[in-house]
Amino acid sequence: MKVAEVLRMNGGNGDTSYATNSLLQRKVILMTKPITDGAITSLYTSLNNPKTISIADLGCSSGPNTFLAVSDLVKAVNSARKKLRQNSSPEFHIYLNDLPSNDFNTIFQSLHKHQEEIKMELGDGSGPCFFNGVPASFYGRLFPTNSLHFVHSSYSLHWLSQEPKGIEENKGNIYMSASSPPSVIQAYYHQFERDFSTFLKCRSDELVKGGRMVLTTLGRKSEDPSSKDGCHIWELLAIALNDLVAKGLVEEEKLNSFNIPMYTPSPAEIKVLVEKNGAFTINCLEVSQIHWTEFDNDNINNNNNEKNNGGYNVVRCMRAVAEPMLVSHFGEGIMEDVFHRYREVIADSMSKEKTQFINVVVSLIRK
Amino acid sequence: MKVAEVLRMNGGNGDTSYATNSLLQRKVILMTKPITDGAITSLYTSLNNPKTISIADLGCSSGPNTFLAVSDLVKAVNSARKKLRQNSSPEFHIYLNDLPSNDFNTIFQSLHKHQEEIKMELGDGSGPCFFNGVPASFYGRLFPTNSLHFVHSSYSLHWLSQEPKGIEENKGNIYMSASSPPSVIQAYYHQFERDFSTFLKCRSDELVKGGRMVLTTLGRKSEDPSSKDGCHIWELLAIALNDLVAKGLVEEEKLNSFNIPMYTPSPAEIKVLVEKNGAFTINCLEVSQIHWTEFDNDNINNNNNEKNNGGYNVVRCMRAVAEPMLVSHFGEGIMEDVFHRYREVIADSMSKEKTQFINVVVSLIRK
Repeated sequence: MKVAEVLRMNGGNGDTSYATNSLLQRKVILMTKPITDGAITSLYTSLNNPKTISIADLGCSSGPNTFLAVSDLVKAVNSARKKLRQNSSPEFHIYLNDLPSNDFNTIFQSLHKHQEEIKMELGDGSGPCFFNGVPASFYGRLFPTNSLHFVHSSYSLHWLSQEPKGIEENKGNIYMSASSPPSVIQAYYHQFERDFSTFLKCRSDELVKGGRMVLTTLGRKSEDPSSKDGCHIWELLAIALNDLVAKGLVEEEKLNSFNIPMYTPSPAEIKVLVEKNGAFTINCLEVSQIHWTEFDNDNINNNNNEKNNGGYNVVRCMRAVAEPMLVSHFGEGIMEDVFHRYREVIADSMSKEKTQFINVVVSLIRK
Repeated sequence: MKVAEVLRMNGGNGDTSYATNSLLQRKVILMTKPITDGAITSLYTSLNNPKTISIADLGCSSGPNTFLAVSDLVKAVNSARKKLRQNSSPEFHIYLNDLPSNDFNTIFQSLHKHQEEIKMELGDGSGPCFFNGVPASFYGRLFPTNSLHFVHSSYSLHWLSQEPKGIEENKGNIYMSASSPPSVIQAYYHQFERDFSTFLKCRSDELVKGGRMVLTTLGRKSEDPSSKDGCHIWELLAIALNDLVAKGLVEEEKLNSFNIPMYTPSPAEIKVLVEKNGAFTINCLEVSQIHWTEFDNDNINNNNNEKNNGGYNVVRCMRAVAEPMLVSHFGEGIMEDVFHRYREVIADSMSKEKTQFINVVVSLIRK
């Protein structure tokens, strides 16, 4: 699997698009808001009336969330400016980054509307926001040296740059699981270690001294990488796919060669790699969670029975995220079967136990 | 007509796409190369071993030309660096700008290939190129104050931000023509004057002192705005459309309300507006031309009779440029008829007289 070519959220604005099904990611951005607001306010104060603030959102995807995080950052600066009674506002240079296969056309076509909304909310006196798209992997340099003030990334850094090497023995699974051999778990960790270290090195080159970075990833509380914390959602997809193998709809070999290029780190793993990199001070490192049921109860339409059954939002969210990757490996034909079965498996799991998405948030300061 | 919504080149890479039919624009970029190379070399020398060079291409469109101009600029800096025996290369921050309706997805998906080609050609020692997309009208601010070193724009500035106001009397025409009333000619000029002045004001804010700007537009030699120089190509399209009105395929009222949002300035008009703006010194101001026949003889495939007939490339080029605008006004249904007839009209004109595209190039230095 060439991750950079197949890892993208469902494009456009349709029923199965990421734009329409990204409530979970929205919740995560809102939960992290006190940390991001605190970080950019502190940055703005330390810069002492800067002329420009350069902000990058890495893994911006395509949909309403694309603008949510950055517009909140601009609003936080505006509030801080008013509190400090600074008359002149900085101009904002905003970089929206994702892989080149991301649907930038859809982002760009909604940009004007979002810019007008931001302008209205900020009122007179706030500086202009100049938006750019940056189509490249964040596991490489994206910006000139010392050119950024603030980096934000939410629900992106758990995606690896490539499938881990040496995981052929992980048969029947599509991600780490309690049944995975130790060598497979290690291979996943090593790929994460390499990728996250590269990420930190690149960002340390790009951020100015004192620059800030707030990163949120899907993660886990447990120190065991194969614990349910991070793996359960994919174990359930593996059950659905194995069922399709049993029905003869998917070849077993095809399933065995499919691996989710992801790693859900613990806070301790993040801490070790940040300290090893050495260029950042950890301002805070936190874990939060969102119960699947809690998230699934959002937007319930009581007139619609389908939406009242468990797993409706969870499976729509997972489809928006995973479908392009699944299509590229298994073909388009079986998608309805996969997600129909996945929905049943998720509903069944939710009726038996309370499962949650775990988020790890780290706020860093460039030394 | 909302120009910002309908003005775009044909997207994708298909048969009628701009990417496949932009030979004319390519020729223009290559003809201007000595001027752009000279300007960026002189800029690089004056900056005295800069760490970063920020380059914006305004109206980059989508296709091979998108990368042609900026990669030539980077190569020119690299040659100058070697001549000056500077060991450390600047990093390049490259901004590709066009309206939000431009097909940025196609650009971004070919970016990696182009980056690799540029890297190969430059060899070791040249700094990295960081590419960004900037989706907004260049008749507004695009970048923070004092943040750009070099602006390039080729075959874009003749497009106006909106249809001129007060041109209802221009019946039967779709652009200025010898038969247009003086008030129509004035309305076109006033719109150009307003737009080009806004453009200069915005760029003067964005460019650093000593920053350079090379602009190429479709223009004219004659001081008469309705001379054939700039108008002939659209007069021929008007003939084709009038023929379709006569056949009952297009309503007369529909034709009367269609106006090409363009102005083809003379060098003297450019000079006056640059001097009125006051922020730039004119380094050079030149006119060049490309004969339709000369351009149309390119890529002739002798086994293909159709391609040997006059106007083949000219009409394909014009279709790639004008089709989205025509579709939005007249609907998709008549496009084959329009371009079939346009081809005949162009071929007939080319058999009778030698007509040319006139280019006006101006190279400016920010005072």
